[in-house]
Amino acid sequence: MSDFQQYLESCQQRINAFLSSQLDTPQPRLDRLYSAMRYSVVIGGKRMRPLLAYASCEAAGGKPGQADHAAGAVELIHAYSLIHDDLPAMDNDDLRRGQPTCHRAFDEATAILAGDGLQALAFELLASAPLSQAETRLRMVQLLGHAAGPQGMVGGQAIDLGAVGEKLDQATLESMHRHKTGALIRASVQLGALASERINPAQLAALGRYADSVGLAFQVQDDILDIESDTSVLGKQQGADLARDKPTYPALLGLDGAHRLAAELRDQALTAVAEFGPAAERLRQLADYTVQRRF
Amino acid sequence: MSDFQQYLESCQQRINAFLSSQLDTPQPRLDRLYSAMRYSVVIGGKRMRPLLAYASCEAAGGKPGQADHAAGAVELIHAYSLIHDDLPAMDNDDLRRGQPTCHRAFDEATAILAGDGLQALAFELLASAPLSQAETRLRMVQLLGHAAGPQGMVGGQAIDLGAVGEKLDQATLESMHRHKTGALIRASVQLGALASERINPAQLAALGRYADSVGLAFQVQDDILDIESDTSVLGKQQGADLARDKPTYPALLGLDGAHRLAAELRDQALTAVAEFGPAAERLRQLADYTVQRRF
Repeated sequence: MSDFQQYLESCQQRINAFLSSQLDTPQPRLDRLYSAMRYSVVIGGKRMRPLLAYASCEAAGGKPGQADHAAGAVELIHAYSLIHDDLPAMDNDDLRRGQPTCHRAFDEATAILAGDGLQALAFELLASAPLSQAETRLRMVQLLGHAAGPQGMVGGQAIDLGAVGEKLDQATLESMHRHKTGALIRASVQLGALASERINPAQLAALGRYADSVGLAFQVQDDILDIESDTSVLGKQQGADLARDKPTYPALLGLDGAHRLAAELRDQALTAVAEFGPAAERLRQLADYTVQRRF
Repeated sequence: MSDFQQYLESCQQRINAFLSSQLDTPQPRLDRLYSAMRYSVVIGGKRMRPLLAYASCEAAGGKPGQADHAAGAVELIHAYSLIHDDLPAMDNDDLRRGQPTCHRAFDEATAILAGDGLQALAFELLASAPLSQAETRLRMVQLLGHAAGPQGMVGGQAIDLGAVGEKLDQATLESMHRHKTGALIRASVQLGALASERINPAQLAALGRYADSVGLAFQVQDDILDIESDTSVLGKQQGADLARDKPTYPALLGLDGAHRLAAELRDQALTAVAEFGPAAERLRQLADYTVQRRF
């Protein structure tokens, strides 16, 4: 196993253990709700947002333990958003990562509540981060609230819903993704850095540029994989975006054009963190991984 | 108009203006989402939670302007919870306060997102409260996260869903309400008091007892009104709880027993804030109002 692969796995184990510790059922009548929350969080995925938070904390000179709450909070927000996106009134998906979606494994009402509960938990968790500066934790809550809310992720989902069947130009497609996935990825990187309690404003802005490029590259690669990958590898229906007439980068730029854009964005991300030197090695590897992954 | 009636209206105007100022559409593609959020927030209601926050801030020696963010945050959480509770997969209500519910006025996907967006906005707003102490704001975020989350309001909704058609004893019914509505009412009172930046732990605990009694009294009175009031006054179907076989206090204690319990709880609330003297007059009036209201 490569050093980077080991790093991924150790971070994934770290965040899985941390998140599990936050989701114990507190009383029997809440068991179904907590089971649904655990199911949706523990079902896994790449943990891209926690990985970015840990790597960004390291780039800023911090230790992983400082970033646990930031990494956990962004993953809880991500998990809640997937539950709600999968609902019948939204994307109406039966499978997520090869498993029944939350509302299929439980029921729709429980899925709505599990998502709502995970969002509240994310903010409670972040406000409880064991950092010395209250101002830093508050800043993190503000950033996450903005990134998760109507001017961030939720807004992106609304733009996406409104755009199905519509021909979007590249600028509008980019704006949609900057809201829908970019805002939370940016928050992941910036929260991780803030958790180090060693970051200055110029560094935070540089990490924001890194995150914007990586976030968009991630989305372009997702669109590419929707076409290139097998359903079995992807864990969801191959060609699902095309079938729904969702706007995608390959539809707009062609497959080659989409590959070129992903590579350009990766390069922009690397440039943004050049000043961090060796401390940003994990961020660089994650930028590479974003455009090289096959699922 | 009585002095108390004037107070209610001035607080309601204050919170309505404050909330409106937070909900302007930032760009055209987000207009439907923001319209749905505004619709659900501005449609109104009694603003019980903001009223409690303002009155509690006053009891602690603070000024109304200090409590705007706390009052706004709890009302946004309340508004989001109503949107999601009304969804077809939950209570499937067509009317709320005599108006079409959010998913009827817009659509189900927009209603889910509007609720999600309002929750995120609540935390962002609270973290941005213009208080001098960052520690106080953080404490407020923690309290609200806990009260809104799976061990608070969302948990209560889950318990409620699991209990339809079940015969609950009084202790279980009370536990359900302490989660479902009590937790957020307690947070409203405690956040308002914290916003004064003049509260000590013993006072905060006393206000917590006040809130627990008022919160339960509010629920008992809601159950009573479901039986006694006309549909036109209530803004929702009279007898709706009975028709759904939902557990209620009148079903458990009889109508007279429910009235007696509401009065007892009001008295407990008054006792809890006796030590605050004249500064707690609005809290006392609100406790009276809770059990005297006809809608």
